Amino acid sequence: MPSAEDSLITRYFRPLATDAGALGLTDDAAVLASSDDDLVVTTDAIVEGVHFLPDDPPDAIARKALRVNLSDLAAKGATPAGFVLTLALREMSDAFLAPFAKALGEDAATFRCPLLGGDTVSTPGPLMMSVTAFGRVPKGQMVRRSTAEVGDHVVVTGTIGDAALGLALLQGRATTDDDDLRAALVGRYRVPQPRNALAQVLRQYARAAMDVSDGLAGDLAKLATASGVSASIAVDRVPLSAAAQALLANGQTDIAALLAGGDDYEILCTVAPDRLEGFLASCEAAGVAATPIGRIVAGTDAPGFLDAEGREMALQRLSYSHF
Amino acid sequence: MPSAEDSLITRYFRPLATDAGALGLTDDAAVLASSDDDLVVTTDAIVEGVHFLPDDPPDAIARKALRVNLSDLAAKGATPAGFVLTLALREMSDAFLAPFAKALGEDAATFRCPLLGGDTVSTPGPLMMSVTAFGRVPKGQMVRRSTAEVGDHVVVTGTIGDAALGLALLQGRATTDDDDLRAALVGRYRVPQPRNALAQVLRQYARAAMDVSDGLAGDLAKLATASGVSASIAVDRVPLSAAAQALLANGQTDIAALLAGGDDYEILCTVAPDRLEGFLASCEAAGVAATPIGRIVAGTDAPGFLDAEGREMALQRLSYSHF
Repeated sequence: MPSAEDSLITRYFRPLATDAGALGLTDDAAVLASSDDDLVVTTDAIVEGVHFLPDDPPDAIARKALRVNLSDLAAKGATPAGFVLTLALREMSDAFLAPFAKALGEDAATFRCPLLGGDTVSTPGPLMMSVTAFGRVPKGQMVRRSTAEVGDHVVVTGTIGDAALGLALLQGRATTDDDDLRAALVGRYRVPQPRNALAQVLRQYARAAMDVSDGLAGDLAKLATASGVSASIAVDRVPLSAAAQALLANGQTDIAALLAGGDDYEILCTVAPDRLEGFLASCEAAGVAATPIGRIVAGTDAPGFLDAEGREMALQRLSYSHF
Repeated sequence: MPSAEDSLITRYFRPLATDAGALGLTDDAAVLASSDDDLVVTTDAIVEGVHFLPDDPPDAIARKALRVNLSDLAAKGATPAGFVLTLALREMSDAFLAPFAKALGEDAATFRCPLLGGDTVSTPGPLMMSVTAFGRVPKGQMVRRSTAEVGDHVVVTGTIGDAALGLALLQGRATTDDDDLRAALVGRYRVPQPRNALAQVLRQYARAAMDVSDGLAGDLAKLATASGVSASIAVDRVPLSAAAQALLANGQTDIAALLAGGDDYEILCTVAPDRLEGFLASCEAAGVAATPIGRIVAGTDAPGFLDAEGREMALQRLSYSHF
C-alpha cells in the first residue's frame, strides 16, 4: 500500500522524470552518465513570502523555482542536463500540485532540463522549493565570475529593474492605471526569462559572467570583487523597458531602486574590446538584446555608477540581502 | 560592502569549500570535473519539527543533514564527491551557525564529501536544510533498487528501530531510567551512522540495495515493488540492539513499531545465495555488522513478516509518510 507521499510522487512528478537517469523516481538516487563534459552544479531556493507571494499562481511558482537555476546555468555557458527538486508543502493539495507539476513539466521540456529526482517534505511553515540544477560544458570551459579584465566592456542582457517594479506594484509600493504595463512588470517578477539561448555565445565570447538575481549594482560588485577589479557604469546606458521608463517619468520609482532591485535574471558579462562586435552580433542572432553599459577599470573600489553629467551616484543599497 | 548574507557565507561556509570545483563559493555554480565515472545524485531535506527537534543541538542537525544523503550514496555503491546545501534560517545566529558549520565541516572531511555550493535563504518558518549530494561509481555500476531476484537473501546492516526509539524517548512516548541506554538511542536518532564503508562491497556483492530511512517494512516493500518481487522476513532474525531489546522486554515498545520506525540509515540489500558468504565476510572486514533476515520470493504481495512460529504478522503501518 503506497503512502500518500509516494502517491503524490507517482501522480505528479513521475511523468516529468523522462530521462533514463531518473530511473522513474523509483530509486534512492539518479544517475548522470559519465561524459567528456564538465558538470556545472547550481542550487537556488525560493521561499513563500520571500521570493514569491502567497497568492502567486502555482504554475508561476514552479517556473520560477526552475528558471532561477536555469539562469545560473546560462550565465556559466552550460547546457541544461537535469535538476532535482526539494518541495516543502504544508498539505498535499491537488489544487496546488496539479498546475505546479504541469508547468514544471512544460519548462523542463522547453529548456530540455528533465527532473532527475527530489524529496517531498511536510512543513508547518511557508512553502519552499529548492532546486539543484546540472548543466554540461566542454571540459574547462565554464564561464566564471573571477576572470574579468581591465578594459573589458560590461554588457547586460534584456532590461533591468522590471521585476523589482512588478513586486512593488504587487505590494502597493508603486501604482499604475495601465493594466498592460502592470501585467508586463508583474510577469517579469513572477516568471523569469532565463537567457539559456546565450549559453554557447557566452562560452565563445564572454571573459566573465554571472546572472543578475540580487540587483545589478550588487551583482556587478560581486563580479568585480571576484575578479580583483572595479567598473565604471554609465547609468543612462542601463537598458530600461518602456514600462520602467514610464514609472520613472511619473515618479513611481527612481533609478537607484532599479539598479539595486533583484529578480532580473539577466546576464551580466564582460567582453574584451576586440570581441564586442562579434558578441553583440551573436546575441542579436540568438534573439537576445545585449547592451554595453560601461567598462571594467583597475582598482578595488566598488563599481562607480555615473549619471549623464559624469557625476558618481551614491547608491544606498546595492542589492537584496536575506539578513 | 558585502551583505550580511555574503558575510555569513564567507565566515562559516567558505572554509568548508576545500574542493577546487567549489571555486571558493564565489561563483554562481560549482564544477564537477568530467571523469570516466557515472555521477550518482541524491537529495534529501530535513525540517525542524519533522526530521529533527527544535532543541536538537546544531552540530547534530548539521551531521544529520549531510549523513541522510551520504547514506543514499552508500546504498548505491557510490564514493562521495561533494554536496550542495540549501539552508533556510529564521535569523543569522552565531550561536547556531558556528557549531552547525563546524560539525558540517568535520563530517565533510570525515566522509571526504566537500561542500561545493549552496544557497542561504531567510524563512519565517521552521529551519530547513536541503542537501544534494554527489557520488561516483564506475560506469554502469550504480547499485539499484529494482534488480532483486527471487531466491536472493535479504540482508540488513547494523540494528533496526533504535532511532525510532530515540525519538520516542525524546517525545515522552517511551521512558527509561537508564541514562546510557537513553543516550545511545537518542544518539541514533540525532546522528545517523551512514554505511559508506560498504560502498565498494555493495557494488561487488549486492544485487539490489537501498538505505532504510522511512522504516524497514515500508522500505523493503519499495524495493520489492521496484524489482517486481516479494519477500519473506523472519522477524526474530531482524537485528536489534541491546537497548531496543530492553525496551521491548519491559513493554515500552513493540516489534511492529521498530519495523516501521524510520531514521535507521542502515543498508537493506539483496544478495545471491552463492555470494552471501563473501558478502558477509567483506562486511565484517569493513567493520559493519550485516544480518540475513529473509529471502526474496516470487509474487507481488507486500513482503511477509513471519514470527517465530511462522505466522504472518499484520503491520498496521509500514513506514513514516509526510502526508
